[in-house]
Amino acid sequence: MVHKRLGPQTVKFDNPPSIISASSIVGQKEGKGPLARYFDEILEDELWGEKTWEKAESKILRETINKVISKANKTNSDINYILAGDLLDQCISTNYAIRESNIPFFGLYGACSTMSESLSLAAMLIDGGYADNIISATSSHFCSAEKQFRYPLELGSQRSPTSQWTVTGSGASLVSSSGNGPYITHVTTGKIIDMGIKDSSNMGCAMAPAASDTIFRHFEETGSIPSDYDMIVTGDLGYIGMEILDELLINLGCRVSDKLHDCGVMIFDRDQQDTHAGGSGCGCSASVFNGYLYQELTNGTLNRILLVSTGALMSPTSIQQGESIPSIAHAVTIQKTRG
Amino acid sequence: MVHKRLGPQTVKFDNPPSIISASSIVGQKEGKGPLARYFDEILEDELWGEKTWEKAESKILRETINKVISKANKTNSDINYILAGDLLDQCISTNYAIRESNIPFFGLYGACSTMSESLSLAAMLIDGGYADNIISATSSHFCSAEKQFRYPLELGSQRSPTSQWTVTGSGASLVSSSGNGPYITHVTTGKIIDMGIKDSSNMGCAMAPAASDTIFRHFEETGSIPSDYDMIVTGDLGYIGMEILDELLINLGCRVSDKLHDCGVMIFDRDQQDTHAGGSGCGCSASVFNGYLYQELTNGTLNRILLVSTGALMSPTSIQQGESIPSIAHAVTIQKTRG
Repeated sequence: MVHKRLGPQTVKFDNPPSIISASSIVGQKEGKGPLARYFDEILEDELWGEKTWEKAESKILRETINKVISKANKTNSDINYILAGDLLDQCISTNYAIRESNIPFFGLYGACSTMSESLSLAAMLIDGGYADNIISATSSHFCSAEKQFRYPLELGSQRSPTSQWTVTGSGASLVSSSGNGPYITHVTTGKIIDMGIKDSSNMGCAMAPAASDTIFRHFEETGSIPSDYDMIVTGDLGYIGMEILDELLINLGCRVSDKLHDCGVMIFDRDQQDTHAGGSGCGCSASVFNGYLYQELTNGTLNRILLVSTGALMSPTSIQQGESIPSIAHAVTIQKTRG
Repeated sequence: MVHKRLGPQTVKFDNPPSIISASSIVGQKEGKGPLARYFDEILEDELWGEKTWEKAESKILRETINKVISKANKTNSDINYILAGDLLDQCISTNYAIRESNIPFFGLYGACSTMSESLSLAAMLIDGGYADNIISATSSHFCSAEKQFRYPLELGSQRSPTSQWTVTGSGASLVSSSGNGPYITHVTTGKIIDMGIKDSSNMGCAMAPAASDTIFRHFEETGSIPSDYDMIVTGDLGYIGMEILDELLINLGCRVSDKLHDCGVMIFDRDQQDTHAGGSGCGCSASVFNGYLYQELTNGTLNRILLVSTGALMSPTSIQQGESIPSIAHAVTIQKTRG
């Protein structure tokens, strides 16, 4: 066995899989944000030549997957599995994106935790010897998400100050049994945490306790400390959720403040691009990881990060039925060297 | 390494994981069908004390998971992961079912292929040494599915003769690194197949080509032949899809007719219970496998089966946008002895 269980939620890889390529495509608004130069492609409009937002989202994901394969000088037949999912009902962005790929597929649903969920499973399947090359991918689209989860865009509804802006974008990683890094060295798999938050316009607040739980378990089970990381990066807690997370971790005796970042905070400019509480969506941590963070890990600006994509697992139906918001966060340690 | 890749889609386990317990709960109609005596519990009504169909479905899944744990004399803390998903938007049946479980969770979306998808991933994670005990589970509910995918039940819409009846039910397997079988010896992971079928009232027809592809690849990559199996059991092709599958396989030179069965055909009595084209839903192959098939494998009536749960990966939105139905099928070899 080339791996080790460190605790109830954490697995360590002695032969860590390598992320040999990464790609990201984002929408116009994301392309005007502070991370613009890290993305492979920036769309000129929200439809990209398609007739509907859902088809546009699917095309973004399809092209991102095509890019991650070609960047690694591989072809579809080199890929053993795709592990992917998205926010749309029945994950149609993913299903239609990959239907011509001819690659064996495991569909995931982790809401906005999908990026780290898919990296976690990919790393285990590769380290376990079941695959040499796996694509982990996900997407979201502002327009398809608003339409499905909130109000028709045409209604021009006012957004709550605590609400977040769904990122139009996608990201894909090619995880491989051989390569020169960055490497996935640990995964800490989240449990569902539900603290009774019912305000679906305040997802950061609902998801922060899940992030706190997973990050705390990660440190506990790995014996690592915050200073072992250059960045601890949550998926899409936004400004409000990140502040709550910081406080929750301090209450647990875990001071990460100066290491803590959030993809939803980083992807937009707070002053120039009003998104209220920051960015969100599966595509948020997917594009920030596969754009910005991957490049900084590759060029050595970052040596070790903990990526903690965060997902809110409710639906419009469950909210209408008075339910609170169950959340989950999966953590993945990614570092430049094998360690 | 204790495993082997036999081909592009098939993995073989040299130390096959064992399914140490299985449980199933079904609705009233399923409880009047020919497999009634194999289910752990039959509901007296569609709501089971809950206020909504979605909450009822979630309760069915929660109780099925509780049963599979207690049947194996385990507690929640013995379970390393739950791998589960369902048909409802954002998989809320699953998310709410397990939110109090305190068990690390990977959410899946494979539509009605979820049972064999979750068994496939569970077997790899266990054989790879990442877990000792994993729960694979899924559910569906006639009322919540009709409401979401078709028409409000209150409308009393006439159903198409090719349509299938979503099973109210769920199934859970506890897959373990140690145990006395039945064992999961092979998994053949499906690719998305889309033959352009657009009639969402004829899912069996849309899914049959995916089942054919996966079954054909399974025989090709494992070198096995139909007579090596007591049963080749598809998930929910129903009468129409099963006939198409049989024909597709014959065209590929693969005669499985006398071994071919379908959970959607088996769960209801064609004469006494008119469901038109048969049963369907994630809960169809989940309840039939974890009820009937598991017991027959345990008592030795069956020695070796190929379980091929079949999923249609469209959504109401994609159908309204003129899209065809992408489908997938995952195959799992399950046998009484280690082989």
